[in-house]
Amino acid sequence: MKKVLLLLAQGFEEYEASVFTDVIGWSRVFGTEPVELITTGLRNEIKCTWNFLVKPELDFTKINVTDYDALAIPGGFEKAGFYEDAFDEKFLNLIRQFDNQGKIIAAICVAALPVAKSGVLKNRNATTYDLLNGKRRKELADFGVIVKDEKIVIDENIITSTGPSTAIEVAFILLEMLTDKENVETVKKYMRFD
Amino acid sequence: MKKVLLLLAQGFEEYEASVFTDVIGWSRVFGTEPVELITTGLRNEIKCTWNFLVKPELDFTKINVTDYDALAIPGGFEKAGFYEDAFDEKFLNLIRQFDNQGKIIAAICVAALPVAKSGVLKNRNATTYDLLNGKRRKELADFGVIVKDEKIVIDENIITSTGPSTAIEVAFILLEMLTDKENVETVKKYMRFD
Repeated sequence: MKKVLLLLAQGFEEYEASVFTDVIGWSRVFGTEPVELITTGLRNEIKCTWNFLVKPELDFTKINVTDYDALAIPGGFEKAGFYEDAFDEKFLNLIRQFDNQGKIIAAICVAALPVAKSGVLKNRNATTYDLLNGKRRKELADFGVIVKDEKIVIDENIITSTGPSTAIEVAFILLEMLTDKENVETVKKYMRFD
Repeated sequence: MKKVLLLLAQGFEEYEASVFTDVIGWSRVFGTEPVELITTGLRNEIKCTWNFLVKPELDFTKINVTDYDALAIPGGFEKAGFYEDAFDEKFLNLIRQFDNQGKIIAAICVAALPVAKSGVLKNRNATTYDLLNGKRRKELADFGVIVKDEKIVIDENIITSTGPSTAIEVAFILLEMLTDKENVETVKKYMRFD
């Protein structure tokens, strides 16, 4: 069975993470091909950007990259501490390992920034949040990324996107890359996105 | 400042709850009129339908209904224990108090069922999840509700909806009822839903 690792940084946005838990979860129950997902992070308890305090399931030191087919990373707010974890060398090194092994990396909104800082997006296409005077897109460019003004950018194994509005579609794209179009249509039907 | 109470049952779906935390959260940071939100539940730790283990912020026994303008309730899966909490008399009584005081109640997917079981939807219009042979809609009708085959139903102060796909729109409708159209347009823009 295909397996996704959901990597949670301090200050992650609940909405941008839950698209992965729920789309993969509904696929497990109603899909034509079930997919597993497990959460991890650098801390035992993670305070989200907004209201949730979440306990990740898997100890970060116990991750075996070869067990997984994809890494999913939600974005988060700087004021909520997102970059404290997302720019941590352990976080960046995990991203490098997934890319080195050719596995899928799906990043929503500003989660493109740790992916870029890890070096795996150098001279490759990606996008990130565009408002606030394009601050995050400038940072993305400073990491050597070819920044595209598109809602969702797929560069081989790496998916990046502009903001919360793209989150659910990124989760469905990830699911399609892991399974197939028929499975995604089935899951969309049960979630009433048809 | 307007204030929303997010009521979390065991086995709630992460996605259907996070639409409220995030839409209200983005409104607090970027909106023309900030809105507060606080989470509560019958347990100190709540296991979601999928992967999250969440600690609610407010002790259920400390709720003062007069402090709030709206109650938001995400749906969840029966196998994850949703109805153990959602059909608990304490849960139902809180719903009755919000309705008695004419406050808004926003329920996503099967969260319409505890709202109906509480009695506040008797002879009123509402909807819920429609697939699985209409099982949930039959249950809703058995509680004396006039069941509508619509994605989202608004009966005065009570919003109900069909499934996960409607969740983000229910959150925006709630925000508009608490503030105004201009505020919702601003929040949608920042979340890139424009």
